[in-house]
Amino acid sequence: VGRALAQLLIRKRLELRQRYDVAWRAVGISTGSHGSLWSPDGIDLDQACRLVESGGRLESLPGEPVGTPLALLDRLDTGVMFELSPVNYETGQPALGHIERALQRGLHAVTANKGPVVHGAVLLSALAREQSVRFLFESTVMDGAPIFSLWRETLPAAELRGFRGVLNSTTNMILGLMEDGQSFEQAVSKAQAIGIAETDPSGDIDGWDASVKVAALVSVLMGVPMTPQQVERRGIREISLTDVQTAAGRGQRWKLVCEAQRQGKGVSGRVQPVLLQAEDPLYGVTGTSSAVTFLTDSLGPLTVLEQDPGPETTAYGLLADFLRATLGDLGLGG
Amino acid sequence: VGRALAQLLIRKRLELRQRYDVAWRAVGISTGSHGSLWSPDGIDLDQACRLVESGGRLESLPGEPVGTPLALLDRLDTGVMFELSPVNYETGQPALGHIERALQRGLHAVTANKGPVVHGAVLLSALAREQSVRFLFESTVMDGAPIFSLWRETLPAAELRGFRGVLNSTTNMILGLMEDGQSFEQAVSKAQAIGIAETDPSGDIDGWDASVKVAALVSVLMGVPMTPQQVERRGIREISLTDVQTAAGRGQRWKLVCEAQRQGKGVSGRVQPVLLQAEDPLYGVTGTSSAVTFLTDSLGPLTVLEQDPGPETTAYGLLADFLRATLGDLGLGG
Repeated sequence: VGRALAQLLIRKRLELRQRYDVAWRAVGISTGSHGSLWSPDGIDLDQACRLVESGGRLESLPGEPVGTPLALLDRLDTGVMFELSPVNYETGQPALGHIERALQRGLHAVTANKGPVVHGAVLLSALAREQSVRFLFESTVMDGAPIFSLWRETLPAAELRGFRGVLNSTTNMILGLMEDGQSFEQAVSKAQAIGIAETDPSGDIDGWDASVKVAALVSVLMGVPMTPQQVERRGIREISLTDVQTAAGRGQRWKLVCEAQRQGKGVSGRVQPVLLQAEDPLYGVTGTSSAVTFLTDSLGPLTVLEQDPGPETTAYGLLADFLRATLGDLGLGG
Repeated sequence: VGRALAQLLIRKRLELRQRYDVAWRAVGISTGSHGSLWSPDGIDLDQACRLVESGGRLESLPGEPVGTPLALLDRLDTGVMFELSPVNYETGQPALGHIERALQRGLHAVTANKGPVVHGAVLLSALAREQSVRFLFESTVMDGAPIFSLWRETLPAAELRGFRGVLNSTTNMILGLMEDGQSFEQAVSKAQAIGIAETDPSGDIDGWDASVKVAALVSVLMGVPMTPQQVERRGIREISLTDVQTAAGRGQRWKLVCEAQRQGKGVSGRVQPVLLQAEDPLYGVTGTSSAVTFLTDSLGPLTVLEQDPGPETTAYGLLADFLRATLGDLGLGG
């Protein structure tokens, strides 16, 4: 995603300048295994991408090596930090700490990492307000599709009563491969081979990834803090090849469905396999696509469907947040 | 829609005050057949709705009768005007004139009428900018679902390359009834009986309504002025009951599909019946629901689906625009 973002920033450089009068310069990069660099005069992102792709280290570029992400942040006091480290479902660290430091230093923070959202949304948003900067995370659910900004910027005076969606592409792909006749184990192997499923696929298969997304949507859009552990969770292990094929023969499909609904002052969240009819807006959500249907007090069910996302899509969500941080937005309800 | 808007404003009065610090007062109403009224101290909207429902005239309420919408506008110099007169595909009048006058008087103008958008978007938007007010029209396409605001406020730095949608609910309902075995004529009569189709249903059946929506989306979102006449247009008269039933037997459906795509510096727009597979995101758009899939340079296909809209949904779009006019929005790309 980091490289996709770099390439998108380069591709859109002229457009950002002409359309928004926004110019950017990359002044620091900190990576897990390719070193880190601070260079106030600007890092050539194209060169940095090539270096990382060829296995090199950033320290070979002009600038000053810095040890850790926090050490890099301590050299900065303006701009936008992109936090793109891998998700930690349990604590949100170390991303949470990076974002906290960035906000404290007066930087905007933009992330594609769900961990800090479910484990620190209230804290980080309050800190951002205090520092007059933004904490934005559009890319954490449904890649770059507008979900958080849809609610923050386009749906004033509508109350979210609940939602229902297909938000985990690994399980969706596995169930699709089973529909094509592959066993669960074969389907998992194939999803791993094409880079969709991780080496340990249990985060997806047991519904953790989906639960984190439910918790993030509920916490931010419904104003009721929820942890992934509070989401009632059943994964797809219980769905057999026979189940999937029987459903297919009837024009139906099993999918791992995410749901939430208001109940009194609280909200209940749930992730479970559901048998969907062809009429269901979620039935056609196949492959890596994802979708969510919002139930409100003011509109009929409103569905956002994103097909065939990739790292470029996530990068676009980060770019959109970068522009919001730089230019400001309406902030209705936010 | 006017009454639905009045009821929504009443229902949301407290929420608007508490959440946005916005208070409103209705100071003038002009109707086609229930008279018109100016009352700077405020009109009791609940009373006005009951009066209109019982066939009464507004002049019986406290205030001053005013002859025409323009005469009413000439008494106002601040606030928001809602233009809700019936659509005129050919010229956009008289709505276009009402909106022009409102903007000239320094009022914001919010409309659910497509006519002024396709016949005056450039003119009216320029006039609004000049007067430092807003011309907003979220409810003209897909009722209250965020379409124009989605692009204006949540998709910065994405280029719209084309779109594809089901945007006319009358033809969609007729084709659905034919799928259930009714003849074209029976289906039209039924759609008229439940108030979906008009007495002269040709505006829907021959694809004019859909063409106006294509023209509005292209003109506003793709920046290329297009009239409904420039949209290549085929209605649903050529689709026989046999066609519909044969398709249904194969798990397929005929729908009137709206499309546009960039071609060089221009854009081509088209409305035509298309045979859809079950996998198509538009396949499940049934009844009065509508949907549009946007094709961009930055995201995978992005679909917005609105199910079961009603006058309340259109009213919600008007309320959302009212809040934007009153509070301001990001205005990215706008």
